Amino acid sequence: MPGAPLDLAAVNRYIALANTCADAAGEVLAHYFRKSFTVDTKADATPVTIADRDAEIAMRALIADAEPGHGILGEEMGRTNPDAEFTWVLDPIDGTKSFITGKPTFGILVSLAWRGKPVIGIIDQPIIHERWIGAEGKATTFNGTPANVRPCPKLADAILYTTSPYLFPDSDLPGFHRLRERVAHALYGGDCYSYGLLASGHADIVVESGLKPYDYAALVPVIEGAGGIVTDWDGKPLTLSSDGRVIAAGDAALHREALAILRTG
Amino acid sequence: MPGAPLDLAAVNRYIALANTCADAAGEVLAHYFRKSFTVDTKADATPVTIADRDAEIAMRALIADAEPGHGILGEEMGRTNPDAEFTWVLDPIDGTKSFITGKPTFGILVSLAWRGKPVIGIIDQPIIHERWIGAEGKATTFNGTPANVRPCPKLADAILYTTSPYLFPDSDLPGFHRLRERVAHALYGGDCYSYGLLASGHADIVVESGLKPYDYAALVPVIEGAGGIVTDWDGKPLTLSSDGRVIAAGDAALHREALAILRTG
Repeated sequence: MPGAPLDLAAVNRYIALANTCADAAGEVLAHYFRKSFTVDTKADATPVTIADRDAEIAMRALIADAEPGHGILGEEMGRTNPDAEFTWVLDPIDGTKSFITGKPTFGILVSLAWRGKPVIGIIDQPIIHERWIGAEGKATTFNGTPANVRPCPKLADAILYTTSPYLFPDSDLPGFHRLRERVAHALYGGDCYSYGLLASGHADIVVESGLKPYDYAALVPVIEGAGGIVTDWDGKPLTLSSDGRVIAAGDAALHREALAILRTG
Repeated sequence: MPGAPLDLAAVNRYIALANTCADAAGEVLAHYFRKSFTVDTKADATPVTIADRDAEIAMRALIADAEPGHGILGEEMGRTNPDAEFTWVLDPIDGTKSFITGKPTFGILVSLAWRGKPVIGIIDQPIIHERWIGAEGKATTFNGTPANVRPCPKLADAILYTTSPYLFPDSDLPGFHRLRERVAHALYGGDCYSYGLLASGHADIVVESGLKPYDYAALVPVIEGAGGIVTDWDGKPLTLSSDGRVIAAGDAALHREALAILRTG
């Protein structure tokens, strides 16, 4: 589809494929959830399990079968077809630490990017059966009904989420602390689920850094299609080449204020 | 029941009443969950909603009706019958911040204490319908099936939970950091749900401080009945008069090692 990435029929076909991928990964994860399995440690000290690997394999097989010309970038198995215009960006388990401790707030992230720009995204929680679907030009849905961010123009009223303060590199930590001290409440441990809650109008800001494309690509269409804003810490749109510093907000004024605080210092 | 708190018929009656309380509170919370409601801020800067208040009122009415001679200590409405031998200890929403952001890992905590010692405890998650029930002399159950802690004798293999590092007073923070740096993985944002995961063998240590009796009373029978250990930071059993510093572990050797690290410094 070079030059016509938003052709409606194609977009609908890709959304259907993204849903099929999330379904397949969800079956794998539900099979292993709260069961006994070996937890290995990757080079970056993060955990990985057979569930991560099997779920990614299942999704890759579906994509290779349906769209052999597309590229794939997955957390566990790297990149295939790196020069393709369309790239599927897969995180079989975002929040592997939550998964291995039996906490059902991890997610499957499935995204399709066109020339590096995420145009379709799914956040799926396969244990409690919650799914946000976003696509460029469409309204985001949560389990089939419209998801909308809420207004929250003032930082003093905002609820902030981040997965862990210890995931920020030292250079980004002061910005996070400045922001944390200005909001009404800060919460931890959300993984991608926090961004879904923001898209549904239950939280106001999510800020993280050190993310990889498979951690954030799917969030972009979900949040934008719900009326929110998600950028890097320079306020620029997220692409597969972004530096992994992410700030999402439901309210544009809040996003501006939060961004200014992150960047002051 | 003075002098005979563990009479089996009475314990079973009290467990039934605790379940009825959790059912009633759960109905209230499910009604308000992810709906629009006003969030007020209490004197301690924590949030409270009509859902907290209505859920506590519902539980208090059931207890006053069934056991008018018993005392009640609830998060939102204080203490009644303070001299009673039996005291019901109620937290209508443990994790109000999770509740107001639509994250289904908050919990209803219901406990019965005899002379200050928790003898029955329930941790209930009313949105995804998960309930841990513990009672002195009985095996803890999770949704009706036995819950058991897992062995994990070495700190380097352990998974640690705490709700937020910013909830520790300055005096306790160094101990937490020493512990955090020694474990395999540290996770955040669990509220009471973390203790349930520990009781079911999915996590190894939970450490917190600044808790109130209604935050920890219910945890004691749940964890002990699952084979785990939960004490204050001096290693002493938790009672309604404890100082609010809590350490739970699934493995006795791990509890000893973690306690020594918390106390060194």
